[in-house]
Amino acid sequence: MTKIWQVYLSGEIHSDWREQIETMTKQKKLPVCFTSPVTNHENSDNCGVAILGAEDKPFWFDHKGGKLNAIRTKTLMRNADIVVVRFGEKYKQWNAAFDAGYASALGKPLVILHSPQLRHALKEVDAAALAVAENPEQIVYILDYVINGNLPSA
Amino acid sequence: MTKIWQVYLSGEIHSDWREQIETMTKQKKLPVCFTSPVTNHENSDNCGVAILGAEDKPFWFDHKGGKLNAIRTKTLMRNADIVVVRFGEKYKQWNAAFDAGYASALGKPLVILHSPQLRHALKEVDAAALAVAENPEQIVYILDYVINGNLPSA
Amino acid sequence: MTKIWQVYLSGEIHSDWREQIETMTKQKKLPVCFTSPVTNHENSDNCGVAILGAEDKPFWFDHKGGKLNAIRTKTLMRNADIVVVRFGEKYKQWNAAFDAGYASALGKPLVILHSPQLRHALKEVDAAALAVAENPEQIVYILDYVINGNLPSA
Amino acid sequence: MTKIWQVYLSGEIHSDWREQIETMTKQKKLPVCFTSPVTNHENSDNCGVAILGAEDKPFWFDHKGGKLNAIRTKTLMRNADIVVVRFGEKYKQWNAAFDAGYASALGKPLVILHSPQLRHALKEVDAAALAVAENPEQIVYILDYVINGNLPSA
Amino acid sequence: MTKIWQVYLSGEIHSDWREQIETMTKQKKLPVCFTSPVTNHENSDNCGVAILGAEDKPFWFDHKGGKLNAIRTKTLMRNADIVVVRFGEKYKQWNAAFDAGYASALGKPLVILHSPQLRHALKEVDAAALAVAENPEQIVYILDYVINGNLPSA
Amino acid sequence: MTKIWQVYLSGEIHSDWREQIETMTKQKKLPVCFTSPVTNHENSDNCGVAILGAEDKPFWFDHKGGKLNAIRTKTLMRNADIVVVRFGEKYKQWNAAFDAGYASALGKPLVILHSPQLRHALKEVDAAALAVAENPEQIVYILDYVINGNLPSA
Amino acid sequence: MTKIWQVYLSGEIHSDWREQIETMTKQKKLPVCFTSPVTNHENSDNCGVAILGAEDKPFWFDHKGGKLNAIRTKTLMRNADIVVVRFGEKYKQWNAAFDAGYASALGKPLVILHSPQLRHALKEVDAAALAVAENPEQIVYILDYVINGNLPSA
Amino acid sequence: MTKIWQVYLSGEIHSDWREQIETMTKQKKLPVCFTSPVTNHENSDNCGVAILGAEDKPFWFDHKGGKLNAIRTKTLMRNADIVVVRFGEKYKQWNAAFDAGYASALGKPLVILHSPQLRHALKEVDAAALAVAENPEQIVYILDYVINGNLPSA
Repeated sequence: MTKIWQVYLSGEIHSDWREQIETMTKQKKLPVCFTSPVTNHENSDNCGVAILGAEDKPFWFDHKGGKLNAIRTKTLMRNADIVVVRFGEKYKQWNAAFDAGYASALGKPLVILHSPQLRHALKEVDAAALAVAENPEQIVYILDYVINGNLPSA
Repeated sequence: MTKIWQVYLSGEIHSDWREQIETMTKQKKLPVCFTSPVTNHENSDNCGVAILGAEDKPFWFDHKGGKLNAIRTKTLMRNADIVVVRFGEKYKQWNAAFDAGYASALGKPLVILHSPQLRHALKEVDAAALAVAENPEQIVYILDYVINGNLPSA
Repeated sequence: MTKIWQVYLSGEIHSDWREQIETMTKQKKLPVCFTSPVTNHENSDNCGVAILGAEDKPFWFDHKGGKLNAIRTKTLMRNADIVVVRFGEKYKQWNAAFDAGYASALGKPLVILHSPQLRHALKEVDAAALAVAENPEQIVYILDYVINGNLPSA
Repeated sequence: MTKIWQVYLSGEIHSDWREQIETMTKQKKLPVCFTSPVTNHENSDNCGVAILGAEDKPFWFDHKGGKLNAIRTKTLMRNADIVVVRFGEKYKQWNAAFDAGYASALGKPLVILHSPQLRHALKEVDAAALAVAENPEQIVYILDYVINGNLPSA
Repeated sequence: MTKIWQVYLSGEIHSDWREQIETMTKQKKLPVCFTSPVTNHENSDNCGVAILGAEDKPFWFDHKGGKLNAIRTKTLMRNADIVVVRFGEKYKQWNAAFDAGYASALGKPLVILHSPQLRHALKEVDAAALAVAENPEQIVYILDYVINGNLPSA
Repeated sequence: MTKIWQVYLSGEIHSDWREQIETMTKQKKLPVCFTSPVTNHENSDNCGVAILGAEDKPFWFDHKGGKLNAIRTKTLMRNADIVVVRFGEKYKQWNAAFDAGYASALGKPLVILHSPQLRHALKEVDAAALAVAENPEQIVYILDYVINGNLPSA
Repeated sequence: MTKIWQVYLSGEIHSDWREQIETMTKQKKLPVCFTSPVTNHENSDNCGVAILGAEDKPFWFDHKGGKLNAIRTKTLMRNADIVVVRFGEKYKQWNAAFDAGYASALGKPLVILHSPQLRHALKEVDAAALAVAENPEQIVYILDYVINGNLPSA
Repeated sequence: MTKIWQVYLSGEIHSDWREQIETMTKQKKLPVCFTSPVTNHENSDNCGVAILGAEDKPFWFDHKGGKLNAIRTKTLMRNADIVVVRFGEKYKQWNAAFDAGYASALGKPLVILHSPQLRHALKEVDAAALAVAENPEQIVYILDYVINGNLPSA
């Protein structure tokens, strides 16, 4: 009975890093089940009022949505074996950093993915991680090593 | 024997919001002990190499520092009754959002302090909070209410 | 391997809100396993003495029953990913509020379902929830969003 | 060094049961520190908007207040050795039942105080308690016994 | 997907109470998986030295065995949904009471099974239980009620 | 600031082993605060009905008392650094074994005190302990060693 | 539905003790799933730089690798029912002792495997274990006993 | 009210590194309370039999001692804010690595102290640490920075 590793992919939703990881993982036939926040940006923003009724104030519009998203993200992070958090170049991405802190306090192995330019701004987040990667390929190499002990061939 | 409330003040270190809160808290004679990360920016950046030896690569320079800071912040957050996190207008402040997530997973009551402009970017963080304030004065009012049941006089 | 979401439906047992939710969930083919307290009111009241022997005093009659019910409810809430608590118009429903507090302290995402008239009386309970819904349909929309990222079509 | 027992008194705020308990406890010189929610009903209702700004909708008016109250109650219940919850004849008192569930999941010894008429409605709450009392005097007797091993003289 | 309830049967190993429960549970087709300590008394006593080598002193003979048994019992109790502990008329059965305390501190629903004669000696153990039964049949009734909401027909 | 070690003395209440330990501990001026269950046997048996009202059935008479005792014992064991459990020659002493299991599951260092004759019956309990002593003097030696590193002079 | 026991085999990677255990376990058809750290020594040493990029300083070379290994070992130990740690004659094997401490604090049943010569050096580690074995065969006997109650035939 | 930081100093007992740290800490007037295992090597080896009676077999001689030492070390590590573990050049020091793993699983900030030569053998232990120092002076600098934000003057 092979263990299926649960890997939560948090953070940036405006590039295809998740698809890249999932494609390479499939090619390598790694026993991994990926989960993530809702990555449809519009739905993620509007979910609160779309389901629970309109709001005049933008704060409550956002609040209802932020909480619905938390039902999903809290549950999936608690279920995860490994939490990967991706920071992109744009936007504040505070929810990504929040997820990293949340996962860290739960004792989940944390992997951070970002370009070298973000190094200084992410130093406290990186300090809590067991690996800091620069590209999606490295995430798949990490999974292949962690699960099977394989290293990328030179 | 009065309970001394432990309040951790996380986040922005480039304005005097902590001093404002501490001054008003003293004026009101509230039984609060404030703690915070190291707020001397230069020391906070350099501590790793200053204590544990030089590094050529900026990543490890930052890594050593980020980890030393975590010794303090993890300990003080675990000791805290309440965690207040302030987001300013500038910088990425990912460590602030990380602290918010960390405190949330520990079950600590969380209070977020930021100007209304940051509302949308902070929606997931605010969604995890028990209060979202806009200025330091409100933090002191919250403490006075939470500790003594007092409300600000009109 | 699709995750089956475990959703505990606590509270009111005198209307068909559970059936409504279950029917709509099936129609949408959501991967959800619902659990609940024993909803046969008479059995739920009499179980203690029916199984463990008669009691003269009503207090012990109720006590034996309340504890047997707790074997089920504690176990199922601990197993749940999400806890939904429904408050109806009638009765005290203190066990529903007790369940909400219990789930909250376990860190379970909490969804509260009640009509707007009960707003003020439920403010502390609602304050602990990640969503407050008014009808069973919204619960299903929440599940569809949380699991699949779908929003109700306009 | 005598242990000071931390006892949280949750529930009804419209009778003087807390004062009765505190007065008798002082007379017996028991080493107990009592804490409670904010018992000023008006402040407790208005605190959210009084501190964090007005709201048009009653739901958010209540929501802001309910959350501020949670900062206090969560902290004090986590600090408590014993949690006592009083149910009166009037009102829904769902926050009292919520507190009982919350304390129970934290593993706190729970004592419930109510008149015999409320027996059936409170059976699940009573089932989670280590004592069910009918009057404040019994609470003080419980404390005197638990702390000193004394029983009330006949 | 029906939940299989994990029920640990601790205590007395010199009567057939486990077999009675298992037979009746099968007749009722309840989805229950029973586990228990090693009930072969001789093996349970001798396991330590039989596997890990002889001992001169009876204390270490017993110590090695007691610890091997703990590998099994700790694991199965942590896996259990419900822990049932049976006390017979004979022997000290301190390991049964130890298991009850262990399960209680883990927050497991606890059911105690003993004849009325043992009432006074077991009062602290019974006080921690959610049900106190007198015969194996009642245990099966409890399971049928807890799992399916069924009561024994009159 | 010297740490005061909290030591809970559970078990036998019909001999003066606690007094012996306390006297020797004072003579050695060890920084220890001892706690224990209520050791007045009569009060411990009668407390439930004396405080909470009479019962016809012996089961409920005992049940009320067992639960009041649990308020004290649960709290003091959770506060303890070390839990010592004494088994005497007489009586079933199931509450002592229950306490040992409870403390063990909480991760408390456990010390068991009994005469060699009880060895076999206590093997599972002893297997969970960090020390098994035969007389009160050894308990004090253990405390002196654990706190100060001192060994008894030959 | 037979429980598959999860057994983590930590420690020495330069002898075939794992293979011996796995072979004998298969012969006995025990329902056990073994996991382990990456046992390819070279990969285990080089993984950090092979995946995440070269390092000049040996400390960071090792640091990157040590952390990647921790993603695997932390996850598998948390998933394990039983943790077996093998100490060989050679090398420092501090990671083995680290794993033993880690597993112990998580409350996992711990089995230590080493030759008698290492007795004194391992006394604190052995003191935390539920069994101390000298050869792989004994580990399989332990599993057969713990799972099935069988003892090795004389 | 200044927080007194609890710092546990684990590991090597054959050099004066603890005294060096304590002396420098006093000179800097840092609010730190240091604790440690029993550092009298002879007492630490003999404590078991000296207190609990002689043993013929060296294994049980050591076992009794190892367990008594665990009463102290488990308690003090659970009480600690920070755990420092020192590895010297000589001996296996498996108890030091065990303590590091134990502290890590408890979520304690971990600081490792060793000379550069031990780098490779300690890579998994160092990977779990928030700082790796080479001399006692650096430990004091870490404490001064973590507590006061001070850096060593150039």
